[in-house]
Amino acid sequence: MHVTLVHIRVRPEAVDAFIAATRANHEASLREPGNHRFDVLKSAADPTRYLLYEAYASAEGAAEHKATAHDLAWREAVADMMAEPRRGEPWVGLYPAG
Amino acid sequence: MHVTLVHIRVRPEAVDAFIAATRANHEASLREPGNHRFDVLKSAADPTRYLLYEAYASAEGAAEHKATAHDLAWREAVADMMAEPRRGEPWVGLYPAG
Repeated sequence: MHVTLVHIRVRPEAVDAFIAATRANHEASLREPGNHRFDVLKSAADPTRYLLYEAYASAEGAAEHKATAHDLAWREAVADMMAEPRRGEPWVGLYPAG
Repeated sequence: MHVTLVHIRVRPEAVDAFIAATRANHEASLREPGNHRFDVLKSAADPTRYLLYEAYASAEGAAEHKATAHDLAWREAVADMMAEPRRGEPWVGLYPAG
């Protein structure tokens, strides 16, 4: 599994709009071929911190996600909601295998 | 979803043994009631850095995991493999919901 953790900090006044836009991206991303997970997490300690846990069968699947209409729309929708630049962190999924 | 991210740094000579012990914990944890995920990730940048992505339907499920024989066995097995103390980070899973 090819995993990307996306670390996000949202401007406090944009939290509700961010969650709505990200839910739409979650729902559309689950329908991509090769997508295993697109979990949306909120920090238990800080309601402005979010994490996307995006897992694909391959690096190609992860790259194709960035070219989808729903991800492009999400990036545009949330651009002004960020309190700081997003940070994507690559991980290799060992288990579950494949 | 109740999610815990466990950040781990392993002593380089213990990497293979750590992966084997953690695979066993992964397989047993998936059979717990209320477990949604127990993903084992390796950093793409540093082969001594690992992340456990543990998701349960409830905080109770996550707490019960810590009392299972397989998790107790894992903690004992890896105790001497840690390069630094593990750090568990709590997250609230928004999507998938429930």
